[in-house]
Amino acid sequence: MVNVGIVGGTGYTGVELLRLLAGHPEVKVTIITSRAEAGRLVSDIYPNLRGHFDIPFSEPDLDALSACDLVFFATPNGTAMKLVPELLERGGKVIDLAADFRIKDIPLWEQWYGMAHSCPELVAEAVYGLPEMNRDAIRSASLVANPGCYPTATTLGFLPLIEAGLVNLSGLIADCKSGVSGAGRGASVGMLMGEVGESFKAYGVPGHRHMPEIRQNLSVVADRPVDVTFVAHLLPMIRGIHSTLYATLTEEVDLQALYESRFSSEPFVDVLPAGSHPETRSVRGINHCRIAVHRPQGGNTVVVLSVIDNLVKGAAGQAIQNMNIMLGMEETLGLRAVALLP
Amino acid sequence: MVNVGIVGGTGYTGVELLRLLAGHPEVKVTIITSRAEAGRLVSDIYPNLRGHFDIPFSEPDLDALSACDLVFFATPNGTAMKLVPELLERGGKVIDLAADFRIKDIPLWEQWYGMAHSCPELVAEAVYGLPEMNRDAIRSASLVANPGCYPTATTLGFLPLIEAGLVNLSGLIADCKSGVSGAGRGASVGMLMGEVGESFKAYGVPGHRHMPEIRQNLSVVADRPVDVTFVAHLLPMIRGIHSTLYATLTEEVDLQALYESRFSSEPFVDVLPAGSHPETRSVRGINHCRIAVHRPQGGNTVVVLSVIDNLVKGAAGQAIQNMNIMLGMEETLGLRAVALLP
Amino acid sequence: MVNVGIVGGTGYTGVELLRLLAGHPEVKVTIITSRAEAGRLVSDIYPNLRGHFDIPFSEPDLDALSACDLVFFATPNGTAMKLVPELLERGGKVIDLAADFRIKDIPLWEQWYGMAHSCPELVAEAVYGLPEMNRDAIRSASLVANPGCYPTATTLGFLPLIEAGLVNLSGLIADCKSGVSGAGRGASVGMLMGEVGESFKAYGVPGHRHMPEIRQNLSVVADRPVDVTFVAHLLPMIRGIHSTLYATLTEEVDLQALYESRFSSEPFVDVLPAGSHPETRSVRGINHCRIAVHRPQGGNTVVVLSVIDNLVKGAAGQAIQNMNIMLGMEETLGLRAVALLP
Amino acid sequence: MVNVGIVGGTGYTGVELLRLLAGHPEVKVTIITSRAEAGRLVSDIYPNLRGHFDIPFSEPDLDALSACDLVFFATPNGTAMKLVPELLERGGKVIDLAADFRIKDIPLWEQWYGMAHSCPELVAEAVYGLPEMNRDAIRSASLVANPGCYPTATTLGFLPLIEAGLVNLSGLIADCKSGVSGAGRGASVGMLMGEVGESFKAYGVPGHRHMPEIRQNLSVVADRPVDVTFVAHLLPMIRGIHSTLYATLTEEVDLQALYESRFSSEPFVDVLPAGSHPETRSVRGINHCRIAVHRPQGGNTVVVLSVIDNLVKGAAGQAIQNMNIMLGMEETLGLRAVALLP
Repeated sequence: MVNVGIVGGTGYTGVELLRLLAGHPEVKVTIITSRAEAGRLVSDIYPNLRGHFDIPFSEPDLDALSACDLVFFATPNGTAMKLVPELLERGGKVIDLAADFRIKDIPLWEQWYGMAHSCPELVAEAVYGLPEMNRDAIRSASLVANPGCYPTATTLGFLPLIEAGLVNLSGLIADCKSGVSGAGRGASVGMLMGEVGESFKAYGVPGHRHMPEIRQNLSVVADRPVDVTFVAHLLPMIRGIHSTLYATLTEEVDLQALYESRFSSEPFVDVLPAGSHPETRSVRGINHCRIAVHRPQGGNTVVVLSVIDNLVKGAAGQAIQNMNIMLGMEETLGLRAVALLP
Repeated sequence: MVNVGIVGGTGYTGVELLRLLAGHPEVKVTIITSRAEAGRLVSDIYPNLRGHFDIPFSEPDLDALSACDLVFFATPNGTAMKLVPELLERGGKVIDLAADFRIKDIPLWEQWYGMAHSCPELVAEAVYGLPEMNRDAIRSASLVANPGCYPTATTLGFLPLIEAGLVNLSGLIADCKSGVSGAGRGASVGMLMGEVGESFKAYGVPGHRHMPEIRQNLSVVADRPVDVTFVAHLLPMIRGIHSTLYATLTEEVDLQALYESRFSSEPFVDVLPAGSHPETRSVRGINHCRIAVHRPQGGNTVVVLSVIDNLVKGAAGQAIQNMNIMLGMEETLGLRAVALLP
Repeated sequence: MVNVGIVGGTGYTGVELLRLLAGHPEVKVTIITSRAEAGRLVSDIYPNLRGHFDIPFSEPDLDALSACDLVFFATPNGTAMKLVPELLERGGKVIDLAADFRIKDIPLWEQWYGMAHSCPELVAEAVYGLPEMNRDAIRSASLVANPGCYPTATTLGFLPLIEAGLVNLSGLIADCKSGVSGAGRGASVGMLMGEVGESFKAYGVPGHRHMPEIRQNLSVVADRPVDVTFVAHLLPMIRGIHSTLYATLTEEVDLQALYESRFSSEPFVDVLPAGSHPETRSVRGINHCRIAVHRPQGGNTVVVLSVIDNLVKGAAGQAIQNMNIMLGMEETLGLRAVALLP
Repeated sequence: MVNVGIVGGTGYTGVELLRLLAGHPEVKVTIITSRAEAGRLVSDIYPNLRGHFDIPFSEPDLDALSACDLVFFATPNGTAMKLVPELLERGGKVIDLAADFRIKDIPLWEQWYGMAHSCPELVAEAVYGLPEMNRDAIRSASLVANPGCYPTATTLGFLPLIEAGLVNLSGLIADCKSGVSGAGRGASVGMLMGEVGESFKAYGVPGHRHMPEIRQNLSVVADRPVDVTFVAHLLPMIRGIHSTLYATLTEEVDLQALYESRFSSEPFVDVLPAGSHPETRSVRGINHCRIAVHRPQGGNTVVVLSVIDNLVKGAAGQAIQNMNIMLGMEETLGLRAVALLP
């Protein structure tokens, strides 16, 4: 049994960590911090946790946190980088679900996130926590930068094509759609049901923070700069991301075989039969990415359809997958549920 | 490990049984029948089951079914009564999730369900599978009639008041609202998203099949005839039932204490703190009924708010709870997940 | 052509006034005020108004407002009572869409709205703007208190029964459900789509501000105190209120004939054929209340189903209906659209 | 006043024609046919039409239809082509809202629609009813092929770029998302709210009937073959299409000025200010297409965002716009409402 702490447990990512960890046979959550809700029972805010977590939120405390085997940061961008250095110094292991350690290029990070980075040296050390790219490095990491939701769905979808060097790297397009839980649980007019229900729109077309992350991932895979146009859209539903990816083939290939082969040993990537159209509900509540690959009318445009639950494989589930790897546990532990459908 | 079969696995109740049984440590599903889909993989129709149930639907076969330790019928009304007699004769145990064995008054059943009953003698023998009323009888039953969704939420909500003889039995009102999954997965214009999305209506006000079932339950509890006005409504969402119940108090009582005491040892009934308003999402995907009891402005009208997931405590989850009891397993086995929120 | 002003045009009630007045052949909106958005174009905030209202929000200005033939207040509770006295003194006509002038009993108002009333003498003078109750008084009124959304649907539904003295006045129940737009456009965690989508709950069961308003209306109709239990619920959709009303008959009556007769000359109340179940979408965007009346199984409980669009007949549409009456125009002017279905 | 008939009035396109024509000052609907519902009142099926259309559905009758000034066909594909020849011979004017006359290449049409065309000679004569491309030809047409919903949003979005010869014609991408009303009102499991609510998926990626229509339109504009990859997706909402279009610029241009100039005299195309993201709700219920054009990070990829209401500009509204043009009426007559928001 390992003890874990969660810093910033009141957002959707925090409650999702708790939901999933409640079913993890080898983990005990000993600390859940929240400055705003300190003293209040976790289950008062999240009634679905009644009977599962009857502990209160507490103020963040470094001594208590460093007594944990691993600490998750489910905090806003810019919070983890303030506490992580000391935790690591004391020998802790950390998974940051925010963006503090995702972008290796510090000036680029500072430009997109609008603040100075307080521990750039740790960014270099941090491992980007996409197990399908970096499993070995994650195994020995002390600090894992858990990927963003759009980057996860998009990177997994493009991965086989780019690894195999089969597509033109300059005209990639990622047309991505997300449920509203991706925007978090902060009060805002823009995310009221009266504003986003029964409607659909793109957002952030001039520039979205997940774009540099996607470019970095694909460039690492290609081992040279990759350009991708990324457009995010907001779906009138709660959970789920659907990435529709477009690339131009530069040579002939059996796409279905390529994808099946690339992911055959991945426990959380499911390549659907040829001709399929994955639904976001097929991964609701679970850590899987389901992918289908198409080549409409036999042309040279590849269309990849990639779906995840933004709160699971796009956040808390992937964090637990990383924890399992870091702590030497079976990778799928606590992550074997069936998607909630209908 | 016990072997179970499911007759009629293609509807929402069937897939929900499969979803929940995938996580049950002591159960193996060996047969899933469907005449219409025989030969097709279960996971072809329900992609959330990929990797969990890679067996095909088969034609119903009595020999195979009677080799199971228990058989669930997730079939339309009128189907189970044709097969159950022979299964029981061969020593099988059966849980019917449809209505064939719920109503003890055969002419009343025949009037509401519009068909003749083919084995009225088994109706007498069948145990109504609401564990909170009938746990002991369920333990030794061979045939359990799994309750309807509205009757489950409504009966549990009224139970403490009626058992304690505290309310007028002639003016009870159950104003109930259900998500669309309660209507099943059959093709119909009336349940298209274009028809039921972003709208709300009552239905079946002149008469609904769950009304005689609710009356029967409450009359059994009161040990005399209870009259209840039941109005069903259709919610523009998928899962969840909310029963708002009204009764007139005939004497003084501490309602909160009454409810907490009545359900203190029930693993799946959660009485919320005084002043609460349960949300249907707080039980999404789980077998709990959450209840709050109010007495607005201190008057003599009691308002009970009772929520369940219609596919879980209102169908498949309760069936598994009954199975656990019938087969001598721990009652909560396979039913300990956390509700999916948000 | 008449000139009207709108004070507080940024909320859902304000934009709905603008949407409806855009199609009114005899009205010109000359002023739309908003302190927060002064200087910004109305159509910048509400793109559906592009090409219809290309005027900016302005700071509220008494001189400008008193030059209008009529002023609508679409402001938070407590705002209108500060400005209305002077406007009336200068000879203006006012319709307040908030609650400042709805409750005749000042201490009761102050208790429920948590503030002192600054012009109680005007409350006595104000006419409650439900045309189906008070058409003649509205015709000559200078100050109209536009009814709340729940009170409109509920009062219209109970009206024929109580006027005719056919039901027990002590056990009335109003089980009401509203779309989220009823909560307005203020930022709040509780109304995020992630919180209220795909879920359903009651709220305010211990006490809701519309309860005293409903009681006042029904008591006026009955000419003696009427007690009603009112429970509000939140629907996972944007527009629409459904009131399900329960009463106990004290004598025999042809309910369908009673309702049809009572509302035969009402342009905005539509009594559906016997056996109907009105859908909220059947009044989406229009000023109608559609009503069906049932007597389940011929018992003595009457069930009335009453639907309105909370932003139209429950707010802006009814305000325009009142304006038409006050200014001597045809009552249905600007209010003849067809509901948006699907 | 002109008399019009509607053949096939029971689907969503039919009811939308009725909703819009109810507000058209110069049109009277004299016939609404439906074989299945003949004799039944229109308002029995569509309660929103109560008080507006109290005429019954009738069997289609050529004599009656040819007495109309214009006949709309809101029938399934393959129906109009059987009746239109005789109607035209008798001097009638026809607008077909289905696909019978959209594709000029008959073998291509027969391949995608899976049937033989019964009057190919009329296809040559028919005018494709996109006023922004073909206004003059529509003015003198007897037979107008009303465009499909995806082709309308997509063609309008690409139009300025292709007319001006500014983009590479071989790598165009149209990533399109539609509400469920686009699938019509036929009973099907796939469109149940339980199946499509709270989920999102692509469909028809290997090939969709609107693809050849889009290619034809763009090729006409470019005056040479244009290749476009078209992917359709299903949104969990009722109305609205959002086309996200990608093209590669081949020369420098002021995109905002180009779009504003191209559509400056179009009454139903609204180019939003630079940097905007149109929401589908901003056109709910109205005949407008709202467009924003972006060039992310100043690269050479243009991203166009184009939204319509699939039932209005994508079907019934555009048909009425065409009718207005064909019959010499003001083009915006009956189409001046404000979008329903929220």
